[in-house]
Amino acid sequence: MEERKKVLVILDINKEQKERVIAVAPNYKYNFHKSLSTVTREIVQEANIIIGNPSKDRVRGSEALEFLQLSSAGSESYVKEGILNKDVILANATGAYGQGISEYMISLVLALFRNLHIYRDNQSKHLWQDAGNSRLVRESTVLILGPGDIGGSFAKKMHNLGAKTISVRRTMGTKPEYIDEQYTNDSLDSLIPRADVIALSLPNTPATTNIINKDRIALMKKSAIVINVGRGNAIEMEALYEALKTKRIAGAGLDVFPEEPLPVDSPLWDLDNLIITPHNNGGEPKSTNTKIIELCIKNYTDYINKGKVATEVDFKTGYKKSIV
Amino acid sequence: MEERKKVLVILDINKEQKERVIAVAPNYKYNFHKSLSTVTREIVQEANIIIGNPSKDRVRGSEALEFLQLSSAGSESYVKEGILNKDVILANATGAYGQGISEYMISLVLALFRNLHIYRDNQSKHLWQDAGNSRLVRESTVLILGPGDIGGSFAKKMHNLGAKTISVRRTMGTKPEYIDEQYTNDSLDSLIPRADVIALSLPNTPATTNIINKDRIALMKKSAIVINVGRGNAIEMEALYEALKTKRIAGAGLDVFPEEPLPVDSPLWDLDNLIITPHNNGGEPKSTNTKIIELCIKNYTDYINKGKVATEVDFKTGYKKSIV
Repeated sequence: MEERKKVLVILDINKEQKERVIAVAPNYKYNFHKSLSTVTREIVQEANIIIGNPSKDRVRGSEALEFLQLSSAGSESYVKEGILNKDVILANATGAYGQGISEYMISLVLALFRNLHIYRDNQSKHLWQDAGNSRLVRESTVLILGPGDIGGSFAKKMHNLGAKTISVRRTMGTKPEYIDEQYTNDSLDSLIPRADVIALSLPNTPATTNIINKDRIALMKKSAIVINVGRGNAIEMEALYEALKTKRIAGAGLDVFPEEPLPVDSPLWDLDNLIITPHNNGGEPKSTNTKIIELCIKNYTDYINKGKVATEVDFKTGYKKSIV
Repeated sequence: MEERKKVLVILDINKEQKERVIAVAPNYKYNFHKSLSTVTREIVQEANIIIGNPSKDRVRGSEALEFLQLSSAGSESYVKEGILNKDVILANATGAYGQGISEYMISLVLALFRNLHIYRDNQSKHLWQDAGNSRLVRESTVLILGPGDIGGSFAKKMHNLGAKTISVRRTMGTKPEYIDEQYTNDSLDSLIPRADVIALSLPNTPATTNIINKDRIALMKKSAIVINVGRGNAIEMEALYEALKTKRIAGAGLDVFPEEPLPVDSPLWDLDNLIITPHNNGGEPKSTNTKIIELCIKNYTDYINKGKVATEVDFKTGYKKSIV
């Protein structure tokens, strides 16, 4: 008799959801953990299937692992050389985050456009004082780097609010109706000078590291703002700091940084035209957790029944596989 | 020969716009002022037509005045008993503000939903710390009091972002497609408990004073937020202060207050869950000024050629006249 497969689930799920996971393959052995704190290296190494994000040190070199369904949108810790065997099917939770994070991106754009961060600083001083003209989304051109689930949702909402939307992608594909103009990455230098908002929702790959570098920051409008919800190393931070400090550009909203938590002595904290959130997109809405769990259950079902899943990650690019 | 009519223009307009104003009635005598600082009582009292906002003390009791085209959306200073003769045609600049102010209203909703005000306070302390779950527009029910130019633009944008929209009006009319449910003011008590966002963009009239009073605040969800861009006296401020201080409701964003500027010793300044802006909607976008001037020129043209204007104010209600 074949040994029963072991399934490790690291998700904060309820009884009904647990029952649905088990129903996918009732003969498998399940091990449920609400958080990483109770998950030992031994538990990880013996699992054939993992749903959730094990620490990369504990999953490194696993010989048993066949399928890893992450609960995160990013997968860069796991695609690095030497972590997973190449025959592991790795999938992320892209699709669960777009609605929530895109609203967060808009919150940053509007806060910067309306100087809400400056008014908050004034409020702490009991200061009733105008902070200058605002800018309107409906009069703005938005350049989106990484128009996937998250960047695409953002583009759609900004388009609905009246913005002109331009996206740059690795590869050309069908242009959605909410993208006014679509280009590949090699057009970036000519597009940056047109943008009022530059929004990054990129995965962490060699190709995206420092994609917004000093030279590209120099191409930006003086009134431009930059939003980054992808990975901190997509922006050359010293150059961005200089541009913000000297008001070379108007502002930025950053959720991610090259070093996290942002060191307490970082000069970024004190920039009046930078809004900082602690890599949480201004807090997950409770509904995102439900979406993640539903996506994990669906992908686990597809893996068992069809041997393939819709959000499989390509180890080479760090992006979703084009054809699954 | 009939005496030439005197037209006083108090607007920051350029040469081309000035020429278009004069072209409406080239034989009239024009007096252009960029701001109130150079406008004496004598200048105001001799004017037959005023475009812009004279101080109410200088316009009080004018016998010459026939038509007053305001550059503001509000007109409450001028409809009060004893300011203008009843045969004056009074018009406001409703229509010029909707796009700008509605984006400001969304900025407040999203900042409160994402705790950007708390993250800004944390930033000033160099504190990398989660501030709890966020809430989503697309999972929210928005109750709009005053769905005119401003409230209507807000409702439309929130609807496009996926919110459920409910409006209450003085009188029922045709329901726009972006309003999911429409009621008259007498339904307010039954609607407040359903609302995640309560947005006020009401004119200052006896009927709207303290419309959000202690009893109605008691009906709100614990997670509700309140936005006020209309007039400060629409909310019973002591009751709102208590509700915010005790976290009886989740938050508020206020641009207007019963006393302005907000006194430096007001306890409102120190509420962590209140966002304050100084009665400027987070700053006017530059384009709003252009819209105001264009609306003033159009209304002046209509007044001269047709004797009536689209945004005439009813002295009795403080609202736009229904039929013009």
